[in-house]
Amino acid sequence: MKKEIPYKIYLEEQEMPKQWYNVRADMKKKPARILNPETLKPITLEELSGIFCEELARQELDDTTAYFDIPDEIRNFYRMYRPSPLTRAYCLEEKLGTPAHIYYKFEGNNTSGSHKLNSAIAQAYYAKKQGLKGVTTETGAGQWGTALSMACAYLDLDCQVYMVKCSYEQKPFRREVMRTYGARVTPSPSMDTEVGRKINAEFPGTSGSLGCAISEAVEAAVSQEGYRYVLGSVLTQVLLHQSIIGLETKTALDKYGIKADTIIGCAGGGSNLGGLISPFVGQMLKGEADYEIIAVEPASCPSLTRGVYAYDFCDTGKVCPLAKMYTLGSSFIPSASHSGGLRYHGMSSVVSELYDQGLVTARSVEQTEVFKAAQMFAKVEGILPAPESSHAIKVAIDEALKCKETGESRNIVFGLTGTGYFDMVAYQKFNDGQMSDYIPTDEELAKSFAKLPKVEL
Amino acid sequence: MKKEIPYKIYLEEQEMPKQWYNVRADMKKKPARILNPETLKPITLEELSGIFCEELARQELDDTTAYFDIPDEIRNFYRMYRPSPLTRAYCLEEKLGTPAHIYYKFEGNNTSGSHKLNSAIAQAYYAKKQGLKGVTTETGAGQWGTALSMACAYLDLDCQVYMVKCSYEQKPFRREVMRTYGARVTPSPSMDTEVGRKINAEFPGTSGSLGCAISEAVEAAVSQEGYRYVLGSVLTQVLLHQSIIGLETKTALDKYGIKADTIIGCAGGGSNLGGLISPFVGQMLKGEADYEIIAVEPASCPSLTRGVYAYDFCDTGKVCPLAKMYTLGSSFIPSASHSGGLRYHGMSSVVSELYDQGLVTARSVEQTEVFKAAQMFAKVEGILPAPESSHAIKVAIDEALKCKETGESRNIVFGLTGTGYFDMVAYQKFNDGQMSDYIPTDEELAKSFAKLPKVEL
Repeated sequence: MKKEIPYKIYLEEQEMPKQWYNVRADMKKKPARILNPETLKPITLEELSGIFCEELARQELDDTTAYFDIPDEIRNFYRMYRPSPLTRAYCLEEKLGTPAHIYYKFEGNNTSGSHKLNSAIAQAYYAKKQGLKGVTTETGAGQWGTALSMACAYLDLDCQVYMVKCSYEQKPFRREVMRTYGARVTPSPSMDTEVGRKINAEFPGTSGSLGCAISEAVEAAVSQEGYRYVLGSVLTQVLLHQSIIGLETKTALDKYGIKADTIIGCAGGGSNLGGLISPFVGQMLKGEADYEIIAVEPASCPSLTRGVYAYDFCDTGKVCPLAKMYTLGSSFIPSASHSGGLRYHGMSSVVSELYDQGLVTARSVEQTEVFKAAQMFAKVEGILPAPESSHAIKVAIDEALKCKETGESRNIVFGLTGTGYFDMVAYQKFNDGQMSDYIPTDEELAKSFAKLPKVEL
Repeated sequence: MKKEIPYKIYLEEQEMPKQWYNVRADMKKKPARILNPETLKPITLEELSGIFCEELARQELDDTTAYFDIPDEIRNFYRMYRPSPLTRAYCLEEKLGTPAHIYYKFEGNNTSGSHKLNSAIAQAYYAKKQGLKGVTTETGAGQWGTALSMACAYLDLDCQVYMVKCSYEQKPFRREVMRTYGARVTPSPSMDTEVGRKINAEFPGTSGSLGCAISEAVEAAVSQEGYRYVLGSVLTQVLLHQSIIGLETKTALDKYGIKADTIIGCAGGGSNLGGLISPFVGQMLKGEADYEIIAVEPASCPSLTRGVYAYDFCDTGKVCPLAKMYTLGSSFIPSASHSGGLRYHGMSSVVSELYDQGLVTARSVEQTEVFKAAQMFAKVEGILPAPESSHAIKVAIDEALKCKETGESRNIVFGLTGTGYFDMVAYQKFNDGQMSDYIPTDEELAKSFAKLPKVEL
């Protein structure tokens, strides 16, 4: 007898994955190696360990080990908010009148409000285990900084966050959450670092950028004894930790005999999408199953749909390693959209390679349409979604409406990465009918592409 | 073999209660009847139905029916966020080094951020079923207004919220959540109602009060065809709906053979506490079990610990029915604490009567201590709690530390009513060391008591 599918599929605690899955191990053609920004040669473990914790550097470079054990301490932390629910969107289906079945994996049920916590606790744990005093990082919209603050508070590790100055001023509440968790939050560019002082002198009154904040955080890490730098997206180590999203999703679907047809995720740096799709892509790579996978990106920052596949700097400050990725160019400055988490010029090298191999497709959407979808979803499913997550909602609704036309009953699964409780300025703009859309011109992109570094391996 | 207790005890969907429990039915000495504010006589069903929906008026007055069926439509809505988890606070226990076992029932896993949604959907449902066009209400801090907006959006019912002007201006994000859910939010006092215009004329530039907002909402309800007024706390109908908190808690504890020793809840109007304790008090009334029950209130607004047990108006505008309750007097104006949800002069008549009968004890705590407890909890349990909920945390920690001294292993259960994501101004004050405590003097209270209405039945 077929089990009735509940609104929320909760796994038992003992069903929570005991290992992360490294999809690179099953890829025949691997993502390209990251490069040392000074030598432009593949970076060594030793070089990388100067910036990152040793174990994280090891994870970053390992493209052959398929499974990594999740340490018990991290699993204990995960238990505070995991397994996260896979929800059947019964109410949304009814509202749309679609024969499709819609499921979403909700990662917003924790105070950081997003999936970022999955990697934050892992990175903080390895830093603690290495005997470090603390970690430094940057944050734009603030999800990553909040997640890292929570993880560090739990492990009693010092946490220094360089927050892009305009966010620091416009999102005081995000800042206060971090402070409540004991983090030191500094508006960037600051006068605490050499690079910060230099930028402040060059551009008096600047409101900062993610690139600048990264540079400050890296400088702070390497100039303090017992500190390392950590990062919340793009890196393959982050995708590895985020694979827990996909592993849980797959276990929950399997439990009820549901075969996903379409899997959808929003894509900024690629950490959530990469994590969600990893085990499914693994099946595709082994010829065990087939899925339609859709990466959804903002039309204002379309790295997959309009970028080029090339080596580029991961940061505008050019202090981080270079990665081969679909990129708009590290000098590209995305418009001030309300999806801060998707305002990144490039895409994780793993997702980029999967896209290049045709295993992942991509679509771009405009933000006003995204907020319409978000509002509809909030009303019928009772969760006010983050603007980033709402990109996936928009395409899930589009796909469900296609099913309505064709009469096909597909299983659509999407990642609901987080909540929008700290994004009310964006919702206010939307409620007041004052939201605008911006799509970069081909000329703008061409200018940025021209500045890509010349790399010859 | 004893089952190992997981971090989170999730009930299956089919274990969610099918009926609400009306504790009044099992009380030998019932709570006193509410009175018509004009005649000062017990209010009739007919009189009450002019303000409230008929079914809600019926529930309000019924003190003999022990169980009310939860309609399927409401149960379907509940499924979006219920059953809510009962969490074993393993990390907090470890941090405190206590032999006590601490459990909390978490009601913040929904966008309204609190337990208020449990009653909002019930009240909106009965309004819809009666064929009404919409409902009106007031909101102070905003939790109740948000919950009602969500419920109305789901049922396609018009929702008009009068929001205390100072909150409207200081909490623009709460306001925007309501607007995103389609509610019309009006700062109170407004120029839309007679009472609003009168107050504006009398006190130009006033920033409003809950009492005034209630009066405006009631006027708006009775002056529009097809509208009724709804209220988020204090009323016995609200406690009835909130009994789902206690019923789920009891089922979860029973499932693992856990016998609660101490049950703790914060108490403003009493809706959360009353709902949490109902089934446990029911057992006490039938002599089946014994529990220590602690109501925690702010020292700035101590209705149980320093109030008198008397008939009083439920609102400062004196348009709502009178209830016999522990009260500081409806003319008492609590200091501007950061726990808006606990700034109410009186206590639900059910909780008041249980307190008077000695089944419930009470304790008052100061807000700086409450925020210290909140911060500690956030760091180890990963949830940033609402200031209101943190009153219960504070006393749960106190009790757990007592166990540490005595070596006794008690089972402490408390209600974690909601999250503090919209309370960051309060946390900022705390982070900056600028939080103050205020305790009313005996003289202040005596002045307010002197103004209590003279009621002779």
